[in-house]
Amino acid sequence: MTTARAPIEYADASPEVRAIYDDIMATRRTDWVNNMWKVLAHDPVTLARIWGNIKQVMGPGTIDPMTKELIYLAVSMTNGCRYCIASHGTAARNKGMSEAQYSELVAIIGLANETNRLATALDVPVDRQFL
Amino acid sequence: MTTARAPIEYADASPEVRAIYDDIMATRRTDWVNNMWKVLAHDPVTLARIWGNIKQVMGPGTIDPMTKELIYLAVSMTNGCRYCIASHGTAARNKGMSEAQYSELVAIIGLANETNRLATALDVPVDRQFL
Amino acid sequence: MTTARAPIEYADASPEVRAIYDDIMATRRTDWVNNMWKVLAHDPVTLARIWGNIKQVMGPGTIDPMTKELIYLAVSMTNGCRYCIASHGTAARNKGMSEAQYSELVAIIGLANETNRLATALDVPVDRQFL
Amino acid sequence: MTTARAPIEYADASPEVRAIYDDIMATRRTDWVNNMWKVLAHDPVTLARIWGNIKQVMGPGTIDPMTKELIYLAVSMTNGCRYCIASHGTAARNKGMSEAQYSELVAIIGLANETNRLATALDVPVDRQFL
Amino acid sequence: MTTARAPIEYADASPEVRAIYDDIMATRRTDWVNNMWKVLAHDPVTLARIWGNIKQVMGPGTIDPMTKELIYLAVSMTNGCRYCIASHGTAARNKGMSEAQYSELVAIIGLANETNRLATALDVPVDRQFL
Amino acid sequence: MTTARAPIEYADASPEVRAIYDDIMATRRTDWVNNMWKVLAHDPVTLARIWGNIKQVMGPGTIDPMTKELIYLAVSMTNGCRYCIASHGTAARNKGMSEAQYSELVAIIGLANETNRLATALDVPVDRQFL
Repeated sequence: MTTARAPIEYADASPEVRAIYDDIMATRRTDWVNNMWKVLAHDPVTLARIWGNIKQVMGPGTIDPMTKELIYLAVSMTNGCRYCIASHGTAARNKGMSEAQYSELVAIIGLANETNRLATALDVPVDRQFL
Repeated sequence: MTTARAPIEYADASPEVRAIYDDIMATRRTDWVNNMWKVLAHDPVTLARIWGNIKQVMGPGTIDPMTKELIYLAVSMTNGCRYCIASHGTAARNKGMSEAQYSELVAIIGLANETNRLATALDVPVDRQFL
Repeated sequence: MTTARAPIEYADASPEVRAIYDDIMATRRTDWVNNMWKVLAHDPVTLARIWGNIKQVMGPGTIDPMTKELIYLAVSMTNGCRYCIASHGTAARNKGMSEAQYSELVAIIGLANETNRLATALDVPVDRQFL
Repeated sequence: MTTARAPIEYADASPEVRAIYDDIMATRRTDWVNNMWKVLAHDPVTLARIWGNIKQVMGPGTIDPMTKELIYLAVSMTNGCRYCIASHGTAARNKGMSEAQYSELVAIIGLANETNRLATALDVPVDRQFL
Repeated sequence: MTTARAPIEYADASPEVRAIYDDIMATRRTDWVNNMWKVLAHDPVTLARIWGNIKQVMGPGTIDPMTKELIYLAVSMTNGCRYCIASHGTAARNKGMSEAQYSELVAIIGLANETNRLATALDVPVDRQFL
Repeated sequence: MTTARAPIEYADASPEVRAIYDDIMATRRTDWVNNMWKVLAHDPVTLARIWGNIKQVMGPGTIDPMTKELIYLAVSMTNGCRYCIASHGTAARNKGMSEAQYSELVAIIGLANETNRLATALDVPVDRQFL
């Protein structure tokens, strides 16, 4: 008895879930579906909702695709989500992130977490110029 | 008796602190110093260390300056640091962030926080392909 | 040399710790004690304090037992505490949580984390009607 | 120059935003729209997406409406989102939360945060029975 | 209609709450009670439980009183709890924290938050020597 | 393809990285380097910056070395950083932390996380005396 749910493979999925798996693979031009979606598939309504959100938010816009993944990684590293760091780290590399850029990314995230705590600890008043 | 410390203005600062204020203004091409540094100035060793870190990490590299600020904002919004959101929000706009890009940034940060919790809640196993 | 401590089994426990193990099993109507308590047993004063708190807070009140576990899970998922998600996920199922309710729970927790970040990021002013 | 955005009032909203405001008021049976939506209205695509998510996730299901708000509050209090605590605290009261239930909710959230840290700090191994 | 509760003053408190206020003032050798307890007083059972926990955990032990407050501050600054930073910052000063020690404390907390994120981001394997 | 990076052993390190490894071992009087530094070594600039920060902040000052490690642990346990708890738990023991002190530390961190949430949830106003 556990809260964890086993991934639902394509062969075992309902037609409604398969349609979403197909859309994920077509959108991403890959031939496999990662575990996040296979675990969400136990709840097809949420699977459809989250995939719809991801497709809209991470799709074409005014911020380029690699930068979007760097932002996603910054949130995931700050939250300590191991799965999310692995999956979006791969996505960022696929969208062009170099090793040097990855090193800089990690440095910025670490430093931002440091200065965030300093600003909070010292209760720094927000400057009039920022309001 | 409080943990908050009053900002130290340029006129009241020691020569060692003034030198850092001068470097901050020269590096950023502004004629004022924001409160974060004026509050850190109670501890000149930490002021010098953090400014040195910021100058190195946020300075020229392989990620462009505006993207660096977007990453910084992603961390600050996730941590809920009001001062940091205000100061780096301003910095990002000064480095070219448009209103449309700001809207997309906020959408990505919100969604990443949502999916981070889903991945954690469901204890999704890391895919072999990501390792 | 590590900070982790091995669980103390019933057979190896002091009479004072055994009395708490007995109370845990009697209160929960189970015949085993989970690792959280066996690890806390290295510090009997804290073991007694935390068990006393849990017994009082999670015991009978004006919120029904299953709902209490859903609230506990919401906090544990937000904090990313894997052990707590596993143990209180089991507790919630034992108290009647269905698979459909679990799916809804996870959806709410994900969405709440998203909108929490949006509200923080955008520094939304608290409405007069909420104060 | 700031990251905060002024709420957009009904009178100043575009027809597309007004349609969402109307749906929010009709769904909630109120005659006003809270600031969260008025601030999101600067980005109508995100406004429509988040309202759609909220309507689906917080709408009728297998968990009763008041319990859903208690779960939402548990996440918001853990994240320290002041706006979210105020708005969903009001929502929970409107859906029947009594003062005694509110007191119990706060007690559970506090205790869960304590035991979450104990489990993490002591690196408690997940019991075989929970897997 | 709000989730915030007004502090209950001594003059308006029940005998049971007054007894706890008296114990707080006697234990701390002060002639006033801070707002945390006056707000908790709406729920006398929780007020008694939390005060009992604080009295036990923060009372005499093997870690000296000022160090206990520094640890408390480290948690509160990391969580971004403004009230807690203010109250335990005052407590730490009353127990002997100097301005130089406060500066060092803030520097450690900032740096620990930075390196925590680096360790998480890079998924550093725990060294065999630490297990 | 992953975001995780393999530790760089001394034998495989560049002269510039070896110099830092040597300084770490000399400063700590050990004959090995822990994985955190070996993973950071993929980015020698960040390795040098973080080691410089740690050496300055955790070096001699007005707070004694063991207390510094207790503060570091408080942050790491609150952030749920498993690597950091393991490494600084070992460091604290090496600097004199007893089992009884470790138990007290964990109790304070747990309780602080609880009361932090209570203060935030109840939106307790900061007392005039703390400002």
